[in-house]
Amino acid sequence: MVVALTGDRPTGPLHLGHYVGSLMNRLVMQGDFEQYIMIADIQALTDNFEHPQKVTENVLELIRDYLAVGLDPSKNTFFIQSQIPEIAELTVYYLNLVTVARLERNPTIKTEIQQKGMGESLPAGFLCYPVSQAADITVVQAEAVPVGEDQLPMIEQTNEIVRRFNRIYNTDCLKECRPILSQTTRLVGIDGKSKAGKSLGNAISLSDSPEEIKRKVFSMFTDPDHLKVSDSGKVEGNVVFAYLDAFHASKDEVAELKTHYQKGGLGDTTIKDILNTTLQNLLDPIRGRRAEFKKSDLLDILRTGTNKTKEKASGLIEKVRGVIGLKYY
Amino acid sequence: MVVALTGDRPTGPLHLGHYVGSLMNRLVMQGDFEQYIMIADIQALTDNFEHPQKVTENVLELIRDYLAVGLDPSKNTFFIQSQIPEIAELTVYYLNLVTVARLERNPTIKTEIQQKGMGESLPAGFLCYPVSQAADITVVQAEAVPVGEDQLPMIEQTNEIVRRFNRIYNTDCLKECRPILSQTTRLVGIDGKSKAGKSLGNAISLSDSPEEIKRKVFSMFTDPDHLKVSDSGKVEGNVVFAYLDAFHASKDEVAELKTHYQKGGLGDTTIKDILNTTLQNLLDPIRGRRAEFKKSDLLDILRTGTNKTKEKASGLIEKVRGVIGLKYY
Repeated sequence: MVVALTGDRPTGPLHLGHYVGSLMNRLVMQGDFEQYIMIADIQALTDNFEHPQKVTENVLELIRDYLAVGLDPSKNTFFIQSQIPEIAELTVYYLNLVTVARLERNPTIKTEIQQKGMGESLPAGFLCYPVSQAADITVVQAEAVPVGEDQLPMIEQTNEIVRRFNRIYNTDCLKECRPILSQTTRLVGIDGKSKAGKSLGNAISLSDSPEEIKRKVFSMFTDPDHLKVSDSGKVEGNVVFAYLDAFHASKDEVAELKTHYQKGGLGDTTIKDILNTTLQNLLDPIRGRRAEFKKSDLLDILRTGTNKTKEKASGLIEKVRGVIGLKYY
Repeated sequence: MVVALTGDRPTGPLHLGHYVGSLMNRLVMQGDFEQYIMIADIQALTDNFEHPQKVTENVLELIRDYLAVGLDPSKNTFFIQSQIPEIAELTVYYLNLVTVARLERNPTIKTEIQQKGMGESLPAGFLCYPVSQAADITVVQAEAVPVGEDQLPMIEQTNEIVRRFNRIYNTDCLKECRPILSQTTRLVGIDGKSKAGKSLGNAISLSDSPEEIKRKVFSMFTDPDHLKVSDSGKVEGNVVFAYLDAFHASKDEVAELKTHYQKGGLGDTTIKDILNTTLQNLLDPIRGRRAEFKKSDLLDILRTGTNKTKEKASGLIEKVRGVIGLKYY
């Protein structure tokens, strides 16, 4: 089976954006790929190092989310990044193979630096995180990496490092990887602005209570000009329809609702009621399973997966040290 | 005993510049300090990563030089940087605590970037090496670091990281260090230009043959205007006198020679003969001891020291992970 690597930063609960953007994809992949799922605590620390508990306290919540959506520990390897120090070691080797200028040109990094308003205060760890990602991917010898379009430069950077390493050290011990592009479009935030994001507070979490879900659905941005039920309404940019597109079971029914809404005579309350039912039905069982797992079970699953990853990582690092020549006795 | 850390990059044989600049100092310190001596192969790779054998092949020569000058394995801990992956792990944590702007302002790095003609091609690993040095120093909890004046910014950078780490994670697990400034002035190269350097080919190695030493002494830059023995000669900028100052046993005799040379009547051949004798006497026993050590003994000494360092490093990394909160099970 082809090895795949995905993962998330443990900085908050997973939400519906993750569900359509990556979790569903991982559910499809499990069993067909040797799938490693990384809890990226070290990467999360690059911009949360002053508040490490924001990261560390979310590790258990993240594995809980994974299991609750149906990712099966017998078909996936879950591991915690910080517990694989081989990643740090690879990062240090790879840092020599990338120029500062190249890192500064990385479009993903550039965008994030702007978004987070870094600049003069840009931590070296943040600039270097594409290198650390190359280490994440190669440490498990992943050849498939499911990503969003915006992460493609990261894959490119990884493959540049892989090729350079293999050429310089005359080896094939590192493997190039290919991106698996997510089919779904990005889920918009409930405010209709940009994508749903943990930090933006405009997302519906997998762990939200029924009341919270309802509240968020009813606060969704629709069509500001759709004042009376009888008015004709716009479907484009209407968050309720974006979510119905993403989550409603029947495409036909959604199409009918859209026509009705555009014609006039369909109120926001009605479509929000329908969406609320859809989301409650989706999230009810997930929330239920979230509550089932005992902390000790979660820790066992993390320990088992991390140990398995550690074994693979040790094997690779031995090879890497060997080809560089860092074996003396 | 106070822990001290020093070390060298294994990129070529040690020479007389190292002898007066650092080895003599380490000889004085041994026994009075818990002295760790690091063979900095990872750091050497930051600008030799394309030719790792230039680094790895010199590791045994370096420990041979250390022992030959009289550094005692029962009083010092010799270790190989690459065999302590905890250093890479610390480096990754520390990278978050330093801004790119701060690294670019580091005077030592700035100078070296200029000297090596990097620029657009500056590898990230090279820019980050002050951070990696902070990891070297703190991983053994060194509180004293013998350095040359030009390395003071590195100590400052390390202490900035230490203070920031301790403050953010509310701990005292990292220790600040103080520089121990070398008393001696830098040894000039035999060409009279800049300092003696491995890469400049203007140094007398501890392992040079008697013939090689003699050849180098007799090719030393003296006073270009001192054409006849009877001419008065200049002592300033005269390499032979610089070396006599550094290595001749009798200050008085050197003072007399200087006066005579300045007055006229003392030939370059005569002072070179005297210096040659001085250096042959110094280096003969060192070269003899170099030949005595079997490879297996050297490897044993490296293994023992590295294992001891590894134990110390593991203890520290446990503490560091603990204060950040990276312990989950």
